Amino acid sequence: MSVLLEKLRAIVGAANVLTEGDLGAWEQDWRKRSRGKALAVVRPGDTRQVAEVVRACAEAGTSIVPQGGNTGLAVGSTPDESGTQVLLSLQRLNAIRGIDAANLTMTVEAGCVLQTLQEAARNAGFLFPLSLAAEGSCTIGGNLATNAGGTQVVRYGNTRDLCLGLEVVTPQGGVWEGTSGLRKDNTGYDLRDLMIGSEGTLGIITAATMKLYPLPAAQLTAWAAVPSLDHAVTLLGLAHQRLGAGLTGFEVMGKFALSLVDKHFPALRVPFIDDASVPWCVLLENSDSESEDHARSRFEALLETAFEAGCVTNAVVAESLTQAHQLWHIRESIPLAQAEEGLNIKHDISIAVSRIPAFVAETDALLAREIPGVRLVNFGHLGDGNLHYNVQAPEGGDSKAFLRDHEDRINTLVYDAVEKFDGSFSAEHGVGSLKVDKLEKHKSPVALEMMRAIKRGLDPQNILNPGRVLRST
Amino acid sequence: MSVLLEKLRAIVGAANVLTEGDLGAWEQDWRKRSRGKALAVVRPGDTRQVAEVVRACAEAGTSIVPQGGNTGLAVGSTPDESGTQVLLSLQRLNAIRGIDAANLTMTVEAGCVLQTLQEAARNAGFLFPLSLAAEGSCTIGGNLATNAGGTQVVRYGNTRDLCLGLEVVTPQGGVWEGTSGLRKDNTGYDLRDLMIGSEGTLGIITAATMKLYPLPAAQLTAWAAVPSLDHAVTLLGLAHQRLGAGLTGFEVMGKFALSLVDKHFPALRVPFIDDASVPWCVLLENSDSESEDHARSRFEALLETAFEAGCVTNAVVAESLTQAHQLWHIRESIPLAQAEEGLNIKHDISIAVSRIPAFVAETDALLAREIPGVRLVNFGHLGDGNLHYNVQAPEGGDSKAFLRDHEDRINTLVYDAVEKFDGSFSAEHGVGSLKVDKLEKHKSPVALEMMRAIKRGLDPQNILNPGRVLRST
Repeated sequence: MSVLLEKLRAIVGAANVLTEGDLGAWEQDWRKRSRGKALAVVRPGDTRQVAEVVRACAEAGTSIVPQGGNTGLAVGSTPDESGTQVLLSLQRLNAIRGIDAANLTMTVEAGCVLQTLQEAARNAGFLFPLSLAAEGSCTIGGNLATNAGGTQVVRYGNTRDLCLGLEVVTPQGGVWEGTSGLRKDNTGYDLRDLMIGSEGTLGIITAATMKLYPLPAAQLTAWAAVPSLDHAVTLLGLAHQRLGAGLTGFEVMGKFALSLVDKHFPALRVPFIDDASVPWCVLLENSDSESEDHARSRFEALLETAFEAGCVTNAVVAESLTQAHQLWHIRESIPLAQAEEGLNIKHDISIAVSRIPAFVAETDALLAREIPGVRLVNFGHLGDGNLHYNVQAPEGGDSKAFLRDHEDRINTLVYDAVEKFDGSFSAEHGVGSLKVDKLEKHKSPVALEMMRAIKRGLDPQNILNPGRVLRST
Repeated sequence: MSVLLEKLRAIVGAANVLTEGDLGAWEQDWRKRSRGKALAVVRPGDTRQVAEVVRACAEAGTSIVPQGGNTGLAVGSTPDESGTQVLLSLQRLNAIRGIDAANLTMTVEAGCVLQTLQEAARNAGFLFPLSLAAEGSCTIGGNLATNAGGTQVVRYGNTRDLCLGLEVVTPQGGVWEGTSGLRKDNTGYDLRDLMIGSEGTLGIITAATMKLYPLPAAQLTAWAAVPSLDHAVTLLGLAHQRLGAGLTGFEVMGKFALSLVDKHFPALRVPFIDDASVPWCVLLENSDSESEDHARSRFEALLETAFEAGCVTNAVVAESLTQAHQLWHIRESIPLAQAEEGLNIKHDISIAVSRIPAFVAETDALLAREIPGVRLVNFGHLGDGNLHYNVQAPEGGDSKAFLRDHEDRINTLVYDAVEKFDGSFSAEHGVGSLKVDKLEKHKSPVALEMMRAIKRGLDPQNILNPGRVLRST
């Protein structure tokens, strides 16, 4: 091993091969579900160095775990416990290579922090719409490797939809350069999308060309009380019809999820929380290319129609950007409020929008029957069919004991229900190492065999992030 | 071979295994560049039959050429001349399986004609935005297999961007079912996008779930004279900024291209054709979710700004749907006018939008220098960076002789220039068999090796559409 370490030091400099001291920032996953041990943390400074590191590791038969901001939720970017894997951090590749205003693109290195990209785009007069809770520390390389979602997907799509091209280091240490910013290119297989979402198992993304959008002239946020999930779905349809591409956010939140925010962060002042007749609320965002006045009149016309149709019973429209941020902050505080309430079980699922009400009704009832006292924290990106269908221990119970006794059973109940509704057990968080068994259980054997063939074909040595997404065989 | 034919007859019925009579509709490509000979034309009626046909062929070691509407431009869906390939027509799989209004999706079989889908969507109150010249006869399966582009890409993306999921028969005759209509699903590799654009070489698409959009409340079309390609690019930026997602079409047309329309179809009355000071025209389309009045005021505000900025010198806005269709009809008549003028050489290229003016200036000059008298027919989807950079013989010359003497040289000059500008030699038409050598020449060895590894991994027997996209080795 010391031969490999010497080689790595020669490639990236001794200061960028870390083997001693507290390496927890790289070895411990963000949710603290797993702590691994790396042979070394290697921090290359450019694409050439990444390629040389991969070649050295491939030669030594040493596997590599690529890592961006280490904010993933599925334990996909920390090393295993063997002490034999190289943790390859992309954080030093953090240059914005260029903004092409006429092409509406930005070419950036993998280690750029998402928020930095949002700000660079805004400074150039554009919107980079990817937005999610970890944006202050996650990197665009990690967003791409996991095809991150977030709050603007209803309009702009997932990270995949925002990417025009990649630069990738292959498992053999070759460099595939594909950042020319083309909006159309039908020359062979779609390697870009194959790499996106492959969680570092097929190649290491070192740079990307991302789409930019015009900055909206105005953005309005509303909070609406809806009488049922069915009505929330109807409201979504109305909003699509009336706002068109102006609909940039559509989040749904169940009463119990909101009550946890109210309980643990009362200063946030959750709208309609004291109205016992309100079972669900919806957060809507309208982005307008024209003006604030226009946005407001369109938004009010939508809500009026929704009132008349009976799918909204009460609503507030934020009067200022501050108020809008406050409303979003309530939505974003649900996971924190859950954590305050105690340990809980998270599910990041997706189902066709039309089937979500039936799924929730049926699965809520099933869990109530099978696990008495269980409390369901339901919220998510309804516009994308993506629910964070989370489960909290019964009130006053010991949440640690609850998880120990019930987590497996609850996961089985939820994921089997998801499969029954043709849904996905991982809408935006990926597979990592946490859900490898779920992939094997819920994906069709035909799809699994295609994935394995692709992995064998591109990485026959199984050098890149082995055991993630697909089990090492 | 008769054993295989007997098996195929048993699977799809004797009436659907064609071996005699004129099979030109399936054996001859649309542009009449190549006529092949099939062992048989096989027309399965459902996905199960497709899978059984594939298994029977795989067992016999007989390769399969999948075909939709046979309107491709790169000779990718007709058999070779060996008489040993099975031509598998998907045309009988033409059911619309369902429209899910709340999920904004439509699940359809591969053999559905594009126009049928557009109409089915409209009848249900939605827009299916894929639109291209062959829409009356091309099939959605072919659109997906080639990742077709068309005129609405600037807003809605390529066919890839309109697809949420596929049903695919694998080269082994397995069925991968992925039509559940999820907008987010991060469970393993992106098999959907790998199949899309793979031109029937990795799997046979039998059905797909496609996105629907709200019907616009109004749609306006304008025709603008611009003083240069640079100004056209500036106008595009202004249109993005002012219209946001309302910008659904942005086509550019060079003066010579328009003069051919004027010459051969004078009744179409090309705007500004007699104004010698107009070198380029732009066709803009604005789709509005609000009203015709609103669309018109937004559109006029954009054009006013563009006049003031000097990037538009004259413009007409269509006063009626009929007028709008007339303007589009002029744009769509360019290829026909070219054909009237004589044989010509077509290039379907893409380049970053920002670099298009420099590419055109440089390459026009290069060709004028190298091939005296050559006439350049420039038009295309500027919003997507996609030009149909076509070459016509010198005026009054023998176009057949011109092609014989100059086609290879012109292709080399153009494609080398495209590579110099980091562009693509096939923006929306694909590779087929016509451009296999171009792929080998212009794609990086690293990308090519990844593609070959994927093909070997998924289709080790090389049973599906061999020699297309990648050369059979």
